[in-house]
Amino acid sequence: MTTSTQYGLIRTLRVRNANVPGVLGTLASAIGSAGANIGNLATVHIAQTHVVRDIDVQVRDLNHLEDVLHAINDLPGVDVLETRDEVLGMHRGGKIRTVSRQPVDSIATLRKVYTPGVAEVCRVIAERPERKRLYTSIANTIAIITDGTAVLGLGNIGLAASMPVMEGKSALLSQLSGVSGVPILVEASTVEEFVDTVVRVAPTFGGIHLEDIASPACFEIVDRLRERLPMPVMQDDQDGTAAVVLGAAAAVCSQLGRELSGQRIGQVGLGAAGQAIADLLMYTTGRPVVGADVQEERLDRHRSHGGETADLKEVMASCDIVIATTGVPGLIRKEQVRKGQVVLALSNPDPEIDPLAALEAGAAMAADGRAVNNVLGYPGIWRGALAAQATGISRAMLMAAGEALAGLAPAGELSPNPLDLEVHREVARFVGRAAVASGIGSASGLDELG
Amino acid sequence: MTTSTQYGLIRTLRVRNANVPGVLGTLASAIGSAGANIGNLATVHIAQTHVVRDIDVQVRDLNHLEDVLHAINDLPGVDVLETRDEVLGMHRGGKIRTVSRQPVDSIATLRKVYTPGVAEVCRVIAERPERKRLYTSIANTIAIITDGTAVLGLGNIGLAASMPVMEGKSALLSQLSGVSGVPILVEASTVEEFVDTVVRVAPTFGGIHLEDIASPACFEIVDRLRERLPMPVMQDDQDGTAAVVLGAAAAVCSQLGRELSGQRIGQVGLGAAGQAIADLLMYTTGRPVVGADVQEERLDRHRSHGGETADLKEVMASCDIVIATTGVPGLIRKEQVRKGQVVLALSNPDPEIDPLAALEAGAAMAADGRAVNNVLGYPGIWRGALAAQATGISRAMLMAAGEALAGLAPAGELSPNPLDLEVHREVARFVGRAAVASGIGSASGLDELG
Repeated sequence: MTTSTQYGLIRTLRVRNANVPGVLGTLASAIGSAGANIGNLATVHIAQTHVVRDIDVQVRDLNHLEDVLHAINDLPGVDVLETRDEVLGMHRGGKIRTVSRQPVDSIATLRKVYTPGVAEVCRVIAERPERKRLYTSIANTIAIITDGTAVLGLGNIGLAASMPVMEGKSALLSQLSGVSGVPILVEASTVEEFVDTVVRVAPTFGGIHLEDIASPACFEIVDRLRERLPMPVMQDDQDGTAAVVLGAAAAVCSQLGRELSGQRIGQVGLGAAGQAIADLLMYTTGRPVVGADVQEERLDRHRSHGGETADLKEVMASCDIVIATTGVPGLIRKEQVRKGQVVLALSNPDPEIDPLAALEAGAAMAADGRAVNNVLGYPGIWRGALAAQATGISRAMLMAAGEALAGLAPAGELSPNPLDLEVHREVARFVGRAAVASGIGSASGLDELG
Repeated sequence: MTTSTQYGLIRTLRVRNANVPGVLGTLASAIGSAGANIGNLATVHIAQTHVVRDIDVQVRDLNHLEDVLHAINDLPGVDVLETRDEVLGMHRGGKIRTVSRQPVDSIATLRKVYTPGVAEVCRVIAERPERKRLYTSIANTIAIITDGTAVLGLGNIGLAASMPVMEGKSALLSQLSGVSGVPILVEASTVEEFVDTVVRVAPTFGGIHLEDIASPACFEIVDRLRERLPMPVMQDDQDGTAAVVLGAAAAVCSQLGRELSGQRIGQVGLGAAGQAIADLLMYTTGRPVVGADVQEERLDRHRSHGGETADLKEVMASCDIVIATTGVPGLIRKEQVRKGQVVLALSNPDPEIDPLAALEAGAAMAADGRAVNNVLGYPGIWRGALAAQATGISRAMLMAAGEALAGLAPAGELSPNPLDLEVHREVARFVGRAAVASGIGSASGLDELG
């Protein structure tokens, strides 16, 4: 949160050094001075005279890696034995799999879960199709769907190359909230083909999670799917992002002793994510957000959603909280930051302003995109929506997710630990209750959320 | 294999009886006399004076269950304490889920499998899309696709009601051969819509497994998909069934000391499964199969595939091996069975002739549909096809699967134990080698099959 460099590569270095106190400190300092971050560190071997460790380093690119290796090898008595790419290693064979929920280890069990036993379950559902909720995985499974047109910050890199992102979403969903996420890569040449395809496979799932679809197609797709499907359709780059940013903004206010609804909020950049953030903040506070963008039609849209508009300079001059999602690195100059301002410069990989620079310029709080990660939102949102048998994703549900996250952020942090399962359970409870309160969910399923 | 009644329901009875030697025998005999089969039996509690056991019974229907309960309760000192439906219980919440292949238990790991680490994997695949095989789950995942129009013997019961079958296929696939199977229920009103939908989602998968699609749409669907997709497309009700039946027929011949290619084979019923069985047998033996059916157009099709045709009477009178897949219970009369004949009456739930009756009439071997279960085929066929990076499913691959199964059947049995993992590994090796020999697979991936 307090450094601005985004790292593109992670490598594991196996390093041998003399078994003398103080060498690790020197080594870590050398890596830091070369501009790399250190992740996990594991001791592999301790001998009388030397120690071997695996050290994860995060670097910008391969040239930067070379610099880091030189810096280490220049230390007396320290050698890099090998450099491994564990990121690729961890992706080998893919990150997810579909498994049986219980072992089929006897013929008697086989006959219960497969023929002839399964026929009875089929008949039971054929009589009353809503029983699929009880006797199939449908109600706890979502499709994670993309067309590969806007993957991370990498753009239209194609379907196959988008799969690691979809698998990552699925892996975390299962791990963090127990919901099954099935990646579906859709090869479609028009919005209509895409929508038709999703509608036709939708009976398999309890919800549709859209991911990394380029604007403006993403807007039309989500609108049409919501019209045609009786289940929650979530556009994670918009809905999930908005909930998590709301959570961060509310956490900051709470920690600074301010009321979110008393703040003047500026949204710089009114693309898909930016507009969704502005919309959710306006819904939550009941007050207009001041939007800035270089595209006139986006300003029109923002006004039609009830927002005010201004240019960047005016936003920086007048707003208490500024959120930026422009994709333009360094757009906000240090001199524009006002004392006591909250600056969330969220563009990846390079933010609109280095959080450290914003803090130096007097900001009360500043962060970049790494502090507000979508992994905080969608697992709990889905768990809550599915438990409540919600027929959609309402703004109230996203607001509830943001409120849950704000309440869970530790002092001095914008967000809670994404690996803490209780965080996702709490988000699910808030979202489930909000679905019921919105009139699009059923309270009967909320017990399972505890 | 030697009883003909197919059981539609499985129930678990909790039974208390006096703790006296011989009571269990009396109890089991009473259940058997009432016409029910006994599955698993577990002792729940042993007290000084009585014993409580859970006994799985397979019955025809609820009326039959009542009879069985009466028969048990009529025994002195024996009481049924409760009747449980464990089949439904085992289906509660569905049978499958999608999980992370490795725990994401530290932020360092999160950063490797998710952002920012995942971006590098995306770039690596974007540069060379064929690397998706290495770094995603695509190459080890198949879609298990249906339109719900011909589910088991139950017919067009709809999409939701077909899900338990698809989940069962997926659960066994994962358990028996480690391949991920993702059910996809497709809501389509025409063959064209169905095919377009499958083609559009196909980039997510390494192969397409079609299941329970009504004839004649299933023929057109599989043909069109094979034209349009560069991956294996398997119609399990045809391809998988044919491989498993071939395996059973070859096992019988081997055990009777006959050559399969020296046998005159009759196929009674030339629907989707029957024609596929006939085709694979003709491919394997190089000799025509004698087909019988009441529909003239099916006979025409069989002749156009190189088969001979006859009526049922002639088939029974002239063939050494008769395979029946008509769906007509009791079609074959005991008097029609010739001495030394092999009779595989495969229609579910009720066969064309009771195997016991066929054996009494002099058949050298007789079996019904339970002895030739598809679960013996598709897990290993898929594992082999995916390992060989096969671009299709050739007849040679199905023949190889049948040969593997025939070689694994124990003496006196038509097929090996479906829960023996080595069975599926052996099928996979045979199929993988056949894919390479067919010129549609690569030998480089076969090492992983051992």
